[in-house]
Amino acid sequence: MKINSMKKYSKEELIKKANKPQEDALKMHPFYGGKIETSLKACVRNYDDFAIWYTPGVAAPCKDIHKNPEKVFEHTNKGNTIAVVTDGTRILGLGNIGPEAGMPVMEGKAMLFKYLGGVDAVPICLKTTDADEIIKTITYLEPSFGGINLEDIEQPKCFYILDELRKRMSIPVWHDDQQGTATVCLAALINALKIVGKKISDVKIVLLGAGAANIRIGWLYIKYGAKPGNLIYVDSKGILHKGREDLKNHREKWEMCNITNEKQITGGLKEALVGADVLSAASTPGPDLIKKEWIATMNKDAIVFVTANPIPEMWPWDALEAGARIVATGRSDFPNQVNNSLGFPGIFRGALDVRAKTITDEMCIAAAEALAKYAQKKGISEDYIIPTMDEPEVYIEEAVAVAKMAIKQNIARIKLSEKELRKSAEEKILRAIRDTKLRMKNGIIKKYK
Amino acid sequence: MKINSMKKYSKEELIKKANKPQEDALKMHPFYGGKIETSLKACVRNYDDFAIWYTPGVAAPCKDIHKNPEKVFEHTNKGNTIAVVTDGTRILGLGNIGPEAGMPVMEGKAMLFKYLGGVDAVPICLKTTDADEIIKTITYLEPSFGGINLEDIEQPKCFYILDELRKRMSIPVWHDDQQGTATVCLAALINALKIVGKKISDVKIVLLGAGAANIRIGWLYIKYGAKPGNLIYVDSKGILHKGREDLKNHREKWEMCNITNEKQITGGLKEALVGADVLSAASTPGPDLIKKEWIATMNKDAIVFVTANPIPEMWPWDALEAGARIVATGRSDFPNQVNNSLGFPGIFRGALDVRAKTITDEMCIAAAEALAKYAQKKGISEDYIIPTMDEPEVYIEEAVAVAKMAIKQNIARIKLSEKELRKSAEEKILRAIRDTKLRMKNGIIKKYK
Repeated sequence: MKINSMKKYSKEELIKKANKPQEDALKMHPFYGGKIETSLKACVRNYDDFAIWYTPGVAAPCKDIHKNPEKVFEHTNKGNTIAVVTDGTRILGLGNIGPEAGMPVMEGKAMLFKYLGGVDAVPICLKTTDADEIIKTITYLEPSFGGINLEDIEQPKCFYILDELRKRMSIPVWHDDQQGTATVCLAALINALKIVGKKISDVKIVLLGAGAANIRIGWLYIKYGAKPGNLIYVDSKGILHKGREDLKNHREKWEMCNITNEKQITGGLKEALVGADVLSAASTPGPDLIKKEWIATMNKDAIVFVTANPIPEMWPWDALEAGARIVATGRSDFPNQVNNSLGFPGIFRGALDVRAKTITDEMCIAAAEALAKYAQKKGISEDYIIPTMDEPEVYIEEAVAVAKMAIKQNIARIKLSEKELRKSAEEKILRAIRDTKLRMKNGIIKKYK
Repeated sequence: MKINSMKKYSKEELIKKANKPQEDALKMHPFYGGKIETSLKACVRNYDDFAIWYTPGVAAPCKDIHKNPEKVFEHTNKGNTIAVVTDGTRILGLGNIGPEAGMPVMEGKAMLFKYLGGVDAVPICLKTTDADEIIKTITYLEPSFGGINLEDIEQPKCFYILDELRKRMSIPVWHDDQQGTATVCLAALINALKIVGKKISDVKIVLLGAGAANIRIGWLYIKYGAKPGNLIYVDSKGILHKGREDLKNHREKWEMCNITNEKQITGGLKEALVGADVLSAASTPGPDLIKKEWIATMNKDAIVFVTANPIPEMWPWDALEAGARIVATGRSDFPNQVNNSLGFPGIFRGALDVRAKTITDEMCIAAAEALAKYAQKKGISEDYIIPTMDEPEVYIEEAVAVAKMAIKQNIARIKLSEKELRKSAEEKILRAIRDTKLRMKNGIIKKYK
């Protein structure tokens, strides 16, 4: 879809379009009774095989792992399995609706992990909202999992939980609402800046929203080269600066008060946007949050990411009319969808393939660059700064880049060549798709009617 | 195989036979890199479907569950998914080898759950051996699971963990080493008694071993009609009686000291067996634990279960020669295999199909009776007192019986007719087998070479 010919929708139309999948979802979820299940990964030639897979045969791999715990990666599926963990406190934009109500999202995430990344994922919705209990519980799960994907946990505790778990565990712990969103936004920004011919070290970036996503997005922009002083955060009470005493107890926001906003300007989004090159919004659904006349005060070739779902913080066509050159949203029905699903499947694929002990910022950046490069090869333009999720190659490229960086940073338990990495990622990702199609064709996955 | 023509093996031969699966296991586990994986249960017609299964569509089932938490059984796979949980303290007969080394067993169990019972199971190996931490962790998992299968947790804490969890959770919690073994032993006993024409209320039963399995086996025999005073337990220090001061701090054994052994005899297995009708052994590998001359002192038509693995507490042919009429072991290469795998898949199938809140003793008894009846229909004899695991119908019958009992006891969340129950169990069990065969045939599950 070309931006210049972008069809303009009313708020009502967009909500209606967003509601259609909801109507389908309400019927299709009970039809299937869940979106993922357990399958056998090993053969059952006949019932005698259970003497190999269970007692008495299974004692041998058990003893082998007891002697050398790392062998658990060879004898079991731990190395390809992650837990998708929530406490239900911030499910989608719905807020604290509880762990049971979070299950459909976690199952959906697990489905995406498998279909897009060949990663086996298990939804774990915890019946506790206490940060320390969540941390302890997740550390107890380590023997069975090769990674942890935190999901939809409210802030500020999500920062603390992520930090603690990264310290305590020797498998990757990832909070998709933070790192995943940041990776995909960075990919979009890399290509947007390339198109307008600006350097990240020179641009002034306004971040609307100071939630889990945008805090991490800011950090990753900085890590990639943005000058902290060139960033300006705006939360619901205005611009973040050293005078924001109300934020002294919010570690992450207070840190941003102190290192961003070099000129220490005050006010709201209106003041922040004057002369800005980039607006990176991850706040609340619009479309009336951002005014056209504010966008008009931005620098030439302005880049505007309005990623709130289901309705962006402002209409993309309004942003363009106001002078923005590139606009991205979170929706699939507009060009340039900044979509988390572009990140986590490939990133975990790469991390698991080398049995990485963590996922570093450098691995996120490698993933963002791989995404950006993939789009570049296809030809980037104002309408196409980031790939779409329907190409398996995207995830394979990403996985290879992430795994290579893990090896380089010495956090990979095993080292593979680029050729081996590509083969591994390709096999696992294409197998998941093939398996699904096979099971649909043969009625194991029923046809929906 | 006819008992009368039973081939006699030496201890070395039997160990060698038991070692063959271990040799295969050591090669085949790394070949497959695990025995279970996650698969999609719902269709992906194209990438737009992810807008139904994930954002924005998924919000609808989330909201629906938030309004009515029971809807989680309709919108997600919770209702067909159980956690197989261990702390690694008593893995098989290997002892406390740790949670990582327990993974192959838990994956094997998950494989059996799916293939035999159509139940989705997730291995959870916990990095804590503290009973209260295990209890707390498992209660936190409740939103995601329809049941909990405890496995290979050392005694005595396994009793406490099971009891507490059954009190605190409103999904079935089951310790297979206790309840599962007890169910299958009861099934064998029912048919053995039928063959010899004795009533359970009349027989004197000696239980060799007072571990998690035999404690529960004794309870289930009592629940089924055995007189507590007619039971005699023998542990490694001799017969349990009220004078066993060393057992005062072991709640479960002490209870048995007080209600069993009416005549308060003392001594060891030798003394216990005099005039006994049944020996139900679940102790340590033999074959030299039980002497032929002791068996010879048992009552006419003696029944002997020697279930230790890999080597029974005594040779079955020795027991027969000493005068026993019926002998059962834990091995698949002898007749009458008392095998846990006959229990848990069908029992959980039935419990899950009616969304049972727990698994009662009565449900275990219903399962045991269904197993016994299944064998009766095929024709019971000294060589065939219990079905083998290779007939899917066994599990279907068991599931229906368990579900019916749950409905009768009013612990089922939904009520289905017998016809519906049979259809549900049959569909799910046959589908799992069909799926596995399909994936093997099409190379999704690789051919082992």
